[in-house]
Amino acid sequence: MSSPRWPQAALEALAERESKIPQYLRLQPSFIANYPAGSDVRSAAENSGLLTAEELEITGPANDAAALLVRIKNKELTAVQVVTAFGKRAAIAHQMVSCLTDFFLEDALVRAKDLDDYYEKTGQLVGPLHGLPISIKDHMDLAGRKSGSGFSGDTLNPPASNHGRISQVLYDAGAVFYCKTNLPQAAMHLETYSFWGQVVNPYNTNLTAGGSSGGCSALIALGGSPLSIGSDIGGSLRSPAANCGVWTLKPTTLRIPRGNGSAPFPGADSIVATFGPICRSLRDIDLWFSVVLGSQPWLQEYDLTPIPWRMSTPATWSGSNGRLRIGVMWHDGVVLPQPPIRRALKTLVDALSKDPAFEMVEYAPFKHFEASELAHELYFVDGGAHIRARAAVNEEPLLPLTEWVITRPTVKDHTIAELWELNLRREALRVQFLEHYNSQNVDVVLGPVGPGPAPSLGTAKYWG
Amino acid sequence: MSSPRWPQAALEALAERESKIPQYLRLQPSFIANYPAGSDVRSAAENSGLLTAEELEITGPANDAAALLVRIKNKELTAVQVVTAFGKRAAIAHQMVSCLTDFFLEDALVRAKDLDDYYEKTGQLVGPLHGLPISIKDHMDLAGRKSGSGFSGDTLNPPASNHGRISQVLYDAGAVFYCKTNLPQAAMHLETYSFWGQVVNPYNTNLTAGGSSGGCSALIALGGSPLSIGSDIGGSLRSPAANCGVWTLKPTTLRIPRGNGSAPFPGADSIVATFGPICRSLRDIDLWFSVVLGSQPWLQEYDLTPIPWRMSTPATWSGSNGRLRIGVMWHDGVVLPQPPIRRALKTLVDALSKDPAFEMVEYAPFKHFEASELAHELYFVDGGAHIRARAAVNEEPLLPLTEWVITRPTVKDHTIAELWELNLRREALRVQFLEHYNSQNVDVVLGPVGPGPAPSLGTAKYWG
Repeated sequence: MSSPRWPQAALEALAERESKIPQYLRLQPSFIANYPAGSDVRSAAENSGLLTAEELEITGPANDAAALLVRIKNKELTAVQVVTAFGKRAAIAHQMVSCLTDFFLEDALVRAKDLDDYYEKTGQLVGPLHGLPISIKDHMDLAGRKSGSGFSGDTLNPPASNHGRISQVLYDAGAVFYCKTNLPQAAMHLETYSFWGQVVNPYNTNLTAGGSSGGCSALIALGGSPLSIGSDIGGSLRSPAANCGVWTLKPTTLRIPRGNGSAPFPGADSIVATFGPICRSLRDIDLWFSVVLGSQPWLQEYDLTPIPWRMSTPATWSGSNGRLRIGVMWHDGVVLPQPPIRRALKTLVDALSKDPAFEMVEYAPFKHFEASELAHELYFVDGGAHIRARAAVNEEPLLPLTEWVITRPTVKDHTIAELWELNLRREALRVQFLEHYNSQNVDVVLGPVGPGPAPSLGTAKYWG
Repeated sequence: MSSPRWPQAALEALAERESKIPQYLRLQPSFIANYPAGSDVRSAAENSGLLTAEELEITGPANDAAALLVRIKNKELTAVQVVTAFGKRAAIAHQMVSCLTDFFLEDALVRAKDLDDYYEKTGQLVGPLHGLPISIKDHMDLAGRKSGSGFSGDTLNPPASNHGRISQVLYDAGAVFYCKTNLPQAAMHLETYSFWGQVVNPYNTNLTAGGSSGGCSALIALGGSPLSIGSDIGGSLRSPAANCGVWTLKPTTLRIPRGNGSAPFPGADSIVATFGPICRSLRDIDLWFSVVLGSQPWLQEYDLTPIPWRMSTPATWSGSNGRLRIGVMWHDGVVLPQPPIRRALKTLVDALSKDPAFEMVEYAPFKHFEASELAHELYFVDGGAHIRARAAVNEEPLLPLTEWVITRPTVKDHTIAELWELNLRREALRVQFLEHYNSQNVDVVLGPVGPGPAPSLGTAKYWG
């Protein structure tokens, strides 16, 4: 599609972002031209000649966050080395797929140096994430950096004066922030396209990286970050992780600290979102939850569920002989998965069926169409006025997917009485859905990744 | 005040309720006349001559629910005996203070007989509440009985086809339902006055029993029930328990099952309510929570917090030498407590100060006025239209307190954008409130009972 005509402030924000990529990390146009539309760009960092062999090794696929942290602890690597390597690789990734909104490697290196000095001086790590570079989706606050939801008007706001609560938890654990990641206009597409650019898929630049946390997942897939923090209401972690072949787990809502950021739009709390990790390995998911819930965030945020991170164990599994009982949902009753997805699911189910640890059963979908229609209406009970107003700040044109989400037949401005009625329908559907889920008697559900209320196993890895 | 002119359907509902009190339990007008306005009516059951000595003993103050359950288990009493005694005493209580909306002792005795037969035949109790008569506030569903929120129009609806979820949990544990209790029009007064009548205080009938669970608390205070289930948003358990000298504890929201009944009005979920017990002893509060949370309600209701009932222990107390650190809030900064309340609070604090188990400190109130104003606006974001519509069903006049709550300056019909803005202000205030609470470094807060967001120790017993 042709690019919309972005307003002046958007162009200025783009120029400013461009200026943050240091000269020594700039890719030549002739280099980028080696990757025409449709390319697999995962080799760009290796081929760019901008990273040393050591930096390529540090950022290579063998190192998940857990491995890097061990190497820092063992003094095989310094935080400065790790942050430098990922920072450089992130800059390259960005130039290939437009995955960043902000880049501040110099600041990050000051922090990394402080951490190294502290460790050298005291022999102690500041916390379980000591020296780990973490990327974060643009709508989450980092002290001193601007935040945005994919509107150029947001760049007119001042920088955040404090870290958001999730950022603070990670910072206190030793994380080093060095970039923020792209998200779609209004953060409400399952692709990632905003005035900041369109995040394309590292495996094939003719395809989308998914969304709305597509900046996070493309960056992870390209080795530009070991751990990224995105967010999800109706698929915004799951879709991009699936599209880019990386790991995620959508946390249950109201477990992860988020400051005032739980509603899709400020104060719109009929449906709430959650923050969550996108990363390189299952054990990094475990690490992230351990750190975040280990901080006892419920002591700071009044409505978070006060339970620690727990691993499921065979003692609680409901299959015969203590087996994990996995329900397979081949199809949600609304969108038939494409043949490659069906084939991949079948391959996985066949493999699991042969493993005595698992008991495989069918899982019946339940009212997914009704649920997604209702959710859509509840997102935009203001008839889309909030989105239009946010775009109007800067006379920014609405992208086609933005226009689409706020002009579907259910979207209209509601009265308070109509909102209450909708909330009641939501409550009734949630109750029915849980009854259905209980009736299926499974421990987890395996299915094609997508938006909607389906219980998710975090199976993104399998479908990437 | 003079009685409003209630519509025909209200008069019919009153006549029907009257007909449910069997002839043998009717008090003579001459007997009632012995208790003019301002009387202490707690002696009515003893003086009525309608209860046997055994029934007076069973319902007497020595027997809390826990004691009754032990006596049933030990076969000192049958469920039929216990239900008969409390049923009779409830009918008398009602005739003195208008605390009931429904009465069905005959049905209850069939259930009690079934329980006795089961115990006789199997040697097993059906559950931890086997044979306990429980009264329940009129807005909670009981299968086959009508439900209402203090509007006579509600009596035109058919009976509930199923127990509500809290009723079902208690029923499954062995409870016997025999009556429903009065609540104010719209359930939104801190007194209890509806077309069903005005619940007056058992200690002094010129005073209110408090509200909105005033039917529950007056019934408990008069010995007509060992355990009653009410509900609370901004004081509706705490106020009546305090007024009637009985025990309550407002549960944290989203721990107690409630079906679709968590909003003050259906679907109005910016502020949520909770159900909770009103009873005769602290150990009955413990009993009720153990039974309710022991049923693992979070497996049926998707948004309940999945943590069992836990008793606070010295291991978690923050006072020096493991002492419970109690913050005393003498005054919430808005309403100065009356002299008897201040005196009672001082007497208690003086006594606790001498006990080495406690460390007493001052607790500073925080923005109670702002919180109560904001809560009031959030209750009625529809400008009171829901209440007016509910009353209009039956052309029922609004009582003065109902009119007052929906005509305060903050009450108006809101747009969706205005609601979102209010929700944001609520979030910000909750965060500030928690920060303040944490800064005070106490385990519990002791203060005069009242509506509003103050942490409550369930100190109703002290202020009755």
